[in-house]
Amino acid sequence: MATVKLLTDDELAPAAAAVFADIRATRGTDYINNFWRALAHDPVLLARTWASLKQVMGAGHLEPKVKEMVYLAVSIAHGCDYCIHSHTAAARAKGLSEPELMELMAIVGMAAETNRLVAGLGVPVDEVFKR
Amino acid sequence: MATVKLLTDDELAPAAAAVFADIRATRGTDYINNFWRALAHDPVLLARTWASLKQVMGAGHLEPKVKEMVYLAVSIAHGCDYCIHSHTAAARAKGLSEPELMELMAIVGMAAETNRLVAGLGVPVDEVFKR
Amino acid sequence: MATVKLLTDDELAPAAAAVFADIRATRGTDYINNFWRALAHDPVLLARTWASLKQVMGAGHLEPKVKEMVYLAVSIAHGCDYCIHSHTAAARAKGLSEPELMELMAIVGMAAETNRLVAGLGVPVDEVFKR
Amino acid sequence: MATVKLLTDDELAPAAAAVFADIRATRGTDYINNFWRALAHDPVLLARTWASLKQVMGAGHLEPKVKEMVYLAVSIAHGCDYCIHSHTAAARAKGLSEPELMELMAIVGMAAETNRLVAGLGVPVDEVFKR
Amino acid sequence: MATVKLLTDDELAPAAAAVFADIRATRGTDYINNFWRALAHDPVLLARTWASLKQVMGAGHLEPKVKEMVYLAVSIAHGCDYCIHSHTAAARAKGLSEPELMELMAIVGMAAETNRLVAGLGVPVDEVFKR
Amino acid sequence: MATVKLLTDDELAPAAAAVFADIRATRGTDYINNFWRALAHDPVLLARTWASLKQVMGAGHLEPKVKEMVYLAVSIAHGCDYCIHSHTAAARAKGLSEPELMELMAIVGMAAETNRLVAGLGVPVDEVFKR
Repeated sequence: MATVKLLTDDELAPAAAAVFADIRATRGTDYINNFWRALAHDPVLLARTWASLKQVMGAGHLEPKVKEMVYLAVSIAHGCDYCIHSHTAAARAKGLSEPELMELMAIVGMAAETNRLVAGLGVPVDEVFKR
Repeated sequence: MATVKLLTDDELAPAAAAVFADIRATRGTDYINNFWRALAHDPVLLARTWASLKQVMGAGHLEPKVKEMVYLAVSIAHGCDYCIHSHTAAARAKGLSEPELMELMAIVGMAAETNRLVAGLGVPVDEVFKR
Repeated sequence: MATVKLLTDDELAPAAAAVFADIRATRGTDYINNFWRALAHDPVLLARTWASLKQVMGAGHLEPKVKEMVYLAVSIAHGCDYCIHSHTAAARAKGLSEPELMELMAIVGMAAETNRLVAGLGVPVDEVFKR
Repeated sequence: MATVKLLTDDELAPAAAAVFADIRATRGTDYINNFWRALAHDPVLLARTWASLKQVMGAGHLEPKVKEMVYLAVSIAHGCDYCIHSHTAAARAKGLSEPELMELMAIVGMAAETNRLVAGLGVPVDEVFKR
Repeated sequence: MATVKLLTDDELAPAAAAVFADIRATRGTDYINNFWRALAHDPVLLARTWASLKQVMGAGHLEPKVKEMVYLAVSIAHGCDYCIHSHTAAARAKGLSEPELMELMAIVGMAAETNRLVAGLGVPVDEVFKR
Repeated sequence: MATVKLLTDDELAPAAAAVFADIRATRGTDYINNFWRALAHDPVLLARTWASLKQVMGAGHLEPKVKEMVYLAVSIAHGCDYCIHSHTAAARAKGLSEPELMELMAIVGMAAETNRLVAGLGVPVDEVFKR
């Protein structure tokens, strides 16, 4: 029940089709997931989001698996069901094992608990944590 | 401006003092940060939270540095300033470099952006992401 | 799968029926959406919420379309799927075009990204922004 | 560092002054807290918010202390520091003891933890929970 | 559409089976809800979460019904649909009436509204609210 | 109390200095706000964020003032104090009047209230809202 139509390949503007082609080439698969088919209504937004994602999740200082774990943790905190499903799949594809996934869950839960305890008690930042 | 008094060592119930002793022994430092001094009003909550944290953040499948990154990512998503400061410090202490910290920021920001795009467009979960 | 029954017209207390009548008269349609059918269990809450909504979203300083955009932006940030669907429909009914909708998405996503970067880096408010 | 001036009694429009008078009469104190001094820029918003608050937090089915606990729990989940401080004070004024406050913290933390575990694991609602 | 398989009784590790047995004994029912069947992939996380929940939601200073109300309020603020369904059911089982449930909704909504007004206006904490 | 040093002009890498020069040229002011001074630790992140912001907030289908209102609404929902201050200032600079600002607050508050009521009651999306 998207609020916009998920565009098929036949319905794409040329600029959006070019992004889809790059997604396919980069990922080595013909499959384009729903997120991009919704974004395709705005080729500029589509192109910018894909370019940013390629850069941010591409080669850098952190391992691909770790990057996906961070992405997943944020998506859980924001309660984004789609993102949780897609990035759990991506993390598994990059080597995340089931025990590691469950350990990530435990950390996310623990962080959520202490985040709220800290807020509720109004705990001030220790001087030693200030830079 | 905590909503409860941050307890000094002299003000602790014996059960809370025992937890503080274990925090000191485990961390190898005499310093007890404000979070625990606020929680100490409820020795049962203090003991349970510390025991959970030791277990969750202790030896497991993921590296300590990666665990802190996940914790930090959640804390940023929840906007917990105290937790951001304390876990940025903890992550650095466990080896997170400045370029890695900035890369984590980029991922957290990117995840936040796409989480909201997905919500706004009501993107349905692809069948391929379902288990 | 509401947690309360969605009340039919036959099941309304008189005070709730009066609110439904005003919703119908104000909107010029017989259709009452599910939100009001859930709220109708508490006629006082129903009446207050409807009165507030009429006032807040009624004639004022901002255009109706802009008001719906602000409402939609908040609903996306809160991840309220029902609200996103109903206020996207309302915004379209008040003249929001598809390119404008996609531009709103881009802004919401960008704001989410920078909101989290700011939190993660603990950026202090500039003096020039203080009033 | 409010984004609007906190209005003094001398700066109020007559409609705002009338609300302040009712707040003082209802609460039996001359003190008006900062929230109302910020809202006073918009006497209609001020009047509506105060009228809603009086109704919602006034006599009803739940005890005043319990109402404040629910208000506080939401404020913690939203990370609203001002609201946490003001409603912790209000809850104490209505009889919340320190052990009860700490118990509330434990529940809020536990809920936050399981909320995120549920989201992360994508747990579907059990049929038995559907009405 | 959980991101992990919901484990049946036949698929449990012994440590997980022991927790399920305790859940059944404590609750006096054979039914195990989906949350525990997802957590069961990690018996340590399962055991810790169940032990914490038993302690936090068990006998203490606050009534069981009030505890469920606080849990529910947090779950609503976090938008956790599963948790809203399960804790609304739990609150009803512990005596929450429909009028009380609707009153809780009104408080949660009111808190959400004022939480955001406070944030938007940047209202500083009054000295009288500081401890 | 940023978690990274706010870089002065003298401390910038050349790629970051180039971005600062473009911010100054685009905005017609020498002042660089703290957000950019924190991001400057990662010139690639800085450059991408600035380029995205210029594109998203630049000429398009919506008025600059409306764009800032949407940005501000999201920032309030996320509780980002820095962003609330900077985008309230930006909105005022683009013509937002005080009565418009207060009207925006009323809408944000109302949306927050109904978002949570919808979540709490589990209201299902009406067929008429589906596209």
